[in-house]
Amino acid sequence: MKAEIIAVGTELLLGQIVNTNARYLSEELAALGVDVYFQTVVGDNFIRLQQAIHIAEDRADIIIFSGGIGPTQDDLTKDALAASLGLELHIDRQAMDNVEAFFKNRGSIMTENNGRQALVINGATPLPNETGLAVGNAITVNNTHYVVLPGPPKELMPMFYNQARPWILSHALTGELPLYSRMLKFAGIGESALETQLLDLIENQSDPTLAPYAKESEVTVRISTKAQNTAEADNKLSALQKQIESRLSNHLYADRDIPIEQVIIETMTAMKLTVSCAESCTGGLLMQSLTSIPGSATAFMGGIVCYSNDMKHKLLNVPADLLEGEHAPGAVSKETAEVLAEQIRMITDTDFGLSVTGVAGPAYSERKPVGLVYIAISERGGKTVTHQFNFKGNRETIRIRSAKSVLYQLWLRLKEIQNEV
Amino acid sequence: MKAEIIAVGTELLLGQIVNTNARYLSEELAALGVDVYFQTVVGDNFIRLQQAIHIAEDRADIIIFSGGIGPTQDDLTKDALAASLGLELHIDRQAMDNVEAFFKNRGSIMTENNGRQALVINGATPLPNETGLAVGNAITVNNTHYVVLPGPPKELMPMFYNQARPWILSHALTGELPLYSRMLKFAGIGESALETQLLDLIENQSDPTLAPYAKESEVTVRISTKAQNTAEADNKLSALQKQIESRLSNHLYADRDIPIEQVIIETMTAMKLTVSCAESCTGGLLMQSLTSIPGSATAFMGGIVCYSNDMKHKLLNVPADLLEGEHAPGAVSKETAEVLAEQIRMITDTDFGLSVTGVAGPAYSERKPVGLVYIAISERGGKTVTHQFNFKGNRETIRIRSAKSVLYQLWLRLKEIQNEV
Repeated sequence: MKAEIIAVGTELLLGQIVNTNARYLSEELAALGVDVYFQTVVGDNFIRLQQAIHIAEDRADIIIFSGGIGPTQDDLTKDALAASLGLELHIDRQAMDNVEAFFKNRGSIMTENNGRQALVINGATPLPNETGLAVGNAITVNNTHYVVLPGPPKELMPMFYNQARPWILSHALTGELPLYSRMLKFAGIGESALETQLLDLIENQSDPTLAPYAKESEVTVRISTKAQNTAEADNKLSALQKQIESRLSNHLYADRDIPIEQVIIETMTAMKLTVSCAESCTGGLLMQSLTSIPGSATAFMGGIVCYSNDMKHKLLNVPADLLEGEHAPGAVSKETAEVLAEQIRMITDTDFGLSVTGVAGPAYSERKPVGLVYIAISERGGKTVTHQFNFKGNRETIRIRSAKSVLYQLWLRLKEIQNEV
Repeated sequence: MKAEIIAVGTELLLGQIVNTNARYLSEELAALGVDVYFQTVVGDNFIRLQQAIHIAEDRADIIIFSGGIGPTQDDLTKDALAASLGLELHIDRQAMDNVEAFFKNRGSIMTENNGRQALVINGATPLPNETGLAVGNAITVNNTHYVVLPGPPKELMPMFYNQARPWILSHALTGELPLYSRMLKFAGIGESALETQLLDLIENQSDPTLAPYAKESEVTVRISTKAQNTAEADNKLSALQKQIESRLSNHLYADRDIPIEQVIIETMTAMKLTVSCAESCTGGLLMQSLTSIPGSATAFMGGIVCYSNDMKHKLLNVPADLLEGEHAPGAVSKETAEVLAEQIRMITDTDFGLSVTGVAGPAYSERKPVGLVYIAISERGGKTVTHQFNFKGNRETIRIRSAKSVLYQLWLRLKEIQNEV
């Protein structure tokens, strides 16, 4: 079953809004096992809207429209679809009652154009709008299924889920198996290195299927299968997950779509461990990631951004002769990273102390190259471990990669401790 | 001049990511006076990608592709376009050097598939990638202009703006009067309040045109005009800017597309002023914003994330009886915000001390509601000013708005000092 989503609205073509409806509908359709092959965005223009409908009819079994069903003369979706199907429109009584009640309740006068929101194509099922006025439409003509939804996400989402989805299940998807998916999340590895590790699985995939993709310094693999029920799906997905895990156990940090900092906070909370940070080049980014997680206060205590050398010395007791002088290692060094991590851990009396110091650029500093970054992890009763990186990219990328590297190394260490126990 | 944007990527069709690239490109093309008539999303599929190209060729003069130019076998955009144009691909030497240098710098081995990122269609102009590895392409065939860009927004945006945009101006938009734009940036005001202030200017616009739009806690107005030369454009744009400024002088912080933290860092550097921060609910976000600006080390010295009450007491000397006890104001209070700002300023010996403390949610704390936030600004030799906010939204929104509010208040104060001098 192939689908196409047609979003209607000049504001999308002007870049005034993002097409979040297409993302929502695509995700929901994927969950139903429907393949979305194309998404189209077209303006509030009768001719071009009809062109888009004709193209979609050639390549899709289900066409879902979002937008263009409001009260104004610009709202043309139902008119264009009706004309294209050779059908007339009529005012749906129940939808009209709804529109009239709305204005009556507000004590305001309904202008005539608002009647357009109650239009239904002859022969179509009206889809009630729980959170707005414009009624949706669903109709099957020549084996193609058409679903017309409103543009505002807060109207579209409930109408899709409560009205259109059951209609699609009973009219278009009779007899198909539902699709189950799982997201596997990886850290400390790039997309192409991960693909190389999984190449045979990717190339010989059938059921479950697997698809890797990369976001900001993160790699995700989605594994999916069609099954009779959750138990059968879980069996199939877990078998494949086990295969992937055996190859990438030091990188696979979650089997649901969460950031690594959430796993860290949850793990530390469960293990009753605490953490603090001393950040130089990342300037707060690392702590910002950790505190973005609700409930992070149980594990993350606080920390210091020591941007200047003076702050490193004054707030974190880094010896001045480590920072400055002809033969000093300098602020960007293994030695300084170590002291920062140890000091912040001791000052805050936490189980772990994390530190980052490096050259984020664009200017180099201490005659050291942009992208040179040292991180350190100090552990209560353990030794302090440091890592050196030479990151590429602009200031933002270097800062993000630096913070992600600390998180990855901390996750690895927590995993090690869990295995020791 | 009509354009179509083709975003390539199965992850878009699965609803895993939102097509923010289409929004960005549409907005930038609108600013160039190019009409985007269609946006299409197609998966990583050779046949369907070619179908999309053929349809676009029938209805657009400029076709802009985003995505599908990475290292994997799924990345097919250049292959499909080359085949559709009847052209071959070659490895661009300079792009390949860039890819090889990346792996060499990281000390890792380049897998063969990475060479795909250096592919250029014969006859096309390579568009260098400042923030990634995959090289872009731009080519004109039979009066249709094709521009191929990478998928990750942080690669696509600089490549479009610095490489593709000039190429489009000189290859596709020749003979038209060039369009000059200026971005006016506002803080401390919402989109609808700003629109109300400028309603007559928006409704009666002709030349220059003006278009407001809102991003994350920021409002921008783009004013544009077509002119013979920069001097003529500057005259027209400055006249309109002056009108806008006279109404919104306490909100208009820049006439180019920079964040308010950059204005703050630049102003403080010029005035030889320094700043430090004590953050509770924002957990490093405020310092992260300030340090995202290159050269911020001249004005920003450092600060403390005091997430737990213990840290507020130990690192920032907040009296325990202010934080805890039945009648204590608590961590989220005007009093604590004041002490935090004053203490961080004194500890770091800076001219300004900034603080934020609040309830970011989702759980309330100290029986105070989610969204209640106090900020304070302490000034050397001056009095400490606090503000209370009741923000709406989720954890992320509340944190962002909190940080932005501190920045806005600091900007206002710096402006005041400048005017006093």
